[in-house]
Amino acid sequence: MEVAKMFISVEEARDRLFKVLRESIVLGIETIHVMNSLGRVVSEYIKAPVSRPRNSLSAVDGYAVRSLDTVGASYYTPVELIVRGALRPGDDPDKLCVEHGSAIRVHTGAPLPCGADAVVMDEDVELRGETILVYRPAAPGLNVIYRGEDISEGSIITEPGAVVQPAHIAALASLGVSTLRVYRKIRVSIIAIGDELIEPGSPLEPGKEYNSSTYIVYAQLFKDGIFHVSYTGIVPDNAESIISAIKSEVARGTDIIITLGGTGVSEADKIAELLKKASLTVFRGVKMRPGRMTSASIIYGRPVIHLSGFPVAAWAGYELILRPAIAKWIGIKGFERPVVYAYLSRRVPNTSGYTSIIRVALQVRNGEYYAEPYMLRGSGVISSLLRTNGYIIVPENVEGFEEGERVPVHLYT
Amino acid sequence: MEVAKMFISVEEARDRLFKVLRESIVLGIETIHVMNSLGRVVSEYIKAPVSRPRNSLSAVDGYAVRSLDTVGASYYTPVELIVRGALRPGDDPDKLCVEHGSAIRVHTGAPLPCGADAVVMDEDVELRGETILVYRPAAPGLNVIYRGEDISEGSIITEPGAVVQPAHIAALASLGVSTLRVYRKIRVSIIAIGDELIEPGSPLEPGKEYNSSTYIVYAQLFKDGIFHVSYTGIVPDNAESIISAIKSEVARGTDIIITLGGTGVSEADKIAELLKKASLTVFRGVKMRPGRMTSASIIYGRPVIHLSGFPVAAWAGYELILRPAIAKWIGIKGFERPVVYAYLSRRVPNTSGYTSIIRVALQVRNGEYYAEPYMLRGSGVISSLLRTNGYIIVPENVEGFEEGERVPVHLYT
Repeated sequence: MEVAKMFISVEEARDRLFKVLRESIVLGIETIHVMNSLGRVVSEYIKAPVSRPRNSLSAVDGYAVRSLDTVGASYYTPVELIVRGALRPGDDPDKLCVEHGSAIRVHTGAPLPCGADAVVMDEDVELRGETILVYRPAAPGLNVIYRGEDISEGSIITEPGAVVQPAHIAALASLGVSTLRVYRKIRVSIIAIGDELIEPGSPLEPGKEYNSSTYIVYAQLFKDGIFHVSYTGIVPDNAESIISAIKSEVARGTDIIITLGGTGVSEADKIAELLKKASLTVFRGVKMRPGRMTSASIIYGRPVIHLSGFPVAAWAGYELILRPAIAKWIGIKGFERPVVYAYLSRRVPNTSGYTSIIRVALQVRNGEYYAEPYMLRGSGVISSLLRTNGYIIVPENVEGFEEGERVPVHLYT
Repeated sequence: MEVAKMFISVEEARDRLFKVLRESIVLGIETIHVMNSLGRVVSEYIKAPVSRPRNSLSAVDGYAVRSLDTVGASYYTPVELIVRGALRPGDDPDKLCVEHGSAIRVHTGAPLPCGADAVVMDEDVELRGETILVYRPAAPGLNVIYRGEDISEGSIITEPGAVVQPAHIAALASLGVSTLRVYRKIRVSIIAIGDELIEPGSPLEPGKEYNSSTYIVYAQLFKDGIFHVSYTGIVPDNAESIISAIKSEVARGTDIIITLGGTGVSEADKIAELLKKASLTVFRGVKMRPGRMTSASIIYGRPVIHLSGFPVAAWAGYELILRPAIAKWIGIKGFERPVVYAYLSRRVPNTSGYTSIIRVALQVRNGEYYAEPYMLRGSGVISSLLRTNGYIIVPENVEGFEEGERVPVHLYT
């Protein structure tokens, strides 16, 4: 196949697309409330404006003391201290001071009063009217939670590219931070190409096929949480209609266009025709399976990625090319799928020169994962995603993996 | 501590809460479009209404033949067949038939014409006017994708309790299914309790603390995708105000109420007071750390779960009690966090009789995970979630895990 010579590696495709995204899209920043920030990509360093806890606190119900006063305390030689007041959570730590020979009653979470450096627990103390008997020496810091022990003022809570997790939200809220700056959502338009396509829900006419690639790509984009996705519907199988659909999406201010279908190498290849009218072909075909007809271009100044009309090939094109290119462009950290390491239950051969994306079903036995490759071929085989938990990548320069080999499995999660 | 005697195990708490949920909530079902179904919980078995592919297809560009006609074909003794037409994707398979001595031109994805049982690739054929020379025998089934090979009619695509993934959406769409029945979202109301609380964004007054537990629980619920969450705001620290807030949430038709805070065992324990007015105390305290003051009750006929006001304890109460109880109640499949197995870099001691939730930071070395336990204590230590990737569970009857022991780590993802 002559076309195969033009195919580039997965890495090269990602890199070219990354550069095109970087050069053609200005991704604005917006300020949002911390409560609505889950899953968004932070655009700034946020440092802790204060320490947490803000003051040193008592970790127990007991008495704040000067540790030196308790040296030598024992069951037989208790130390007697005068109780000079009490502090509760939220009280001002300078309201009361512990002087030599005295103690201050503190509740769990109360500030450590000035002068004190330790707290003796109720269990180690006997209260006698206005004094306590301390039966055990208290080392400096005993039962004290120090100021900034959890988060110290100035420490970094989030950095540019971080995807907001529940823990970030809790940390920011606890420090009084109510808003943060995040990248605006990326506007993506999906255009489905094909005279033969009809939408699910319509009765099937002869010669027609249900559109499914749009649905899987839409779901993937939606799941990633950083996109505004709009779907234009099905466009007829000719370059003029496709160009016109792209033009109207560009006019609406979209950032990235995804076309689905029309990518065959046979006579039905409308993308080849389309690319002749594009201002730039970024790449045409990638040495990967499935998804080898994944292509990219610039049309009306916008990056257009051409994914296969076959659902699993479309899935692979998003997963291995577009998604990593976007992650690199924005600098998203931790956007990779979670990985488990698994023993292959069968040999996985590779097509030389191609990166293969092999879907696997995982099983756990005795705290080890085993991966069963799903071997039905064909880029339209939806069951290969339906019956599996993740995928392994066989790089283009690797002949395959042996049975029993330990390989990283990228979870769909 | 006398109260500890009333504490129950994590399993018992989940089970009691599960029963309360089952008995007090009728979870309706709604029909939604497949495109909007990601992450929702399916309420029905959906079987494939048709096969996929619907007809047997050619996997390549080539010629459909009767395999028997090609027996003995070789480079020196090619078999000559008459080409009697062509089929394209979408054509009716009965439009043309392959009879003895003939072949039909087929494009990739075209239906296999009647009479044919194999396809010879273009590469193995020479076209001579209206005949072809076949240079290789074709075994039955060669280059044929059989009807139903991907999904066979009647096979189960989703079952009750399945969480909709992109692959389900693609499968349903490809089979023409545009709508599905899912459980309606669960309505959850969050009530934050505490005179000392203020919301982030307000200036901090003396004796006040920023509300953070609401924010982490809200984010967890939101992330799980099956809840409608409403947040009532901060309610003062007395049983009347809390009861009144619960009443108005019940009046609005909420399913589950979460209170945050007021759960201390000290004088500040407003939940104890509240529970005296509850129609039923489901449980009061759980043998887990953090989160041991997690409680549950029934008030105005609604299940109320009382989580700690400390953010990490609130997180743990949701993660270990409420979330699994909800999963069991609805029958959600695969709702567990993804698990990796890791070697502990340090010993993890346990408090006898308690289930400990130890947050760990993961590292990968040579295809193995290593888990570093985050040892700062205290249920308010937000950095324990911020600086880690997942958690391990030390069951109540286990004294701890040794350094180097291999343990399952539940990822936050």
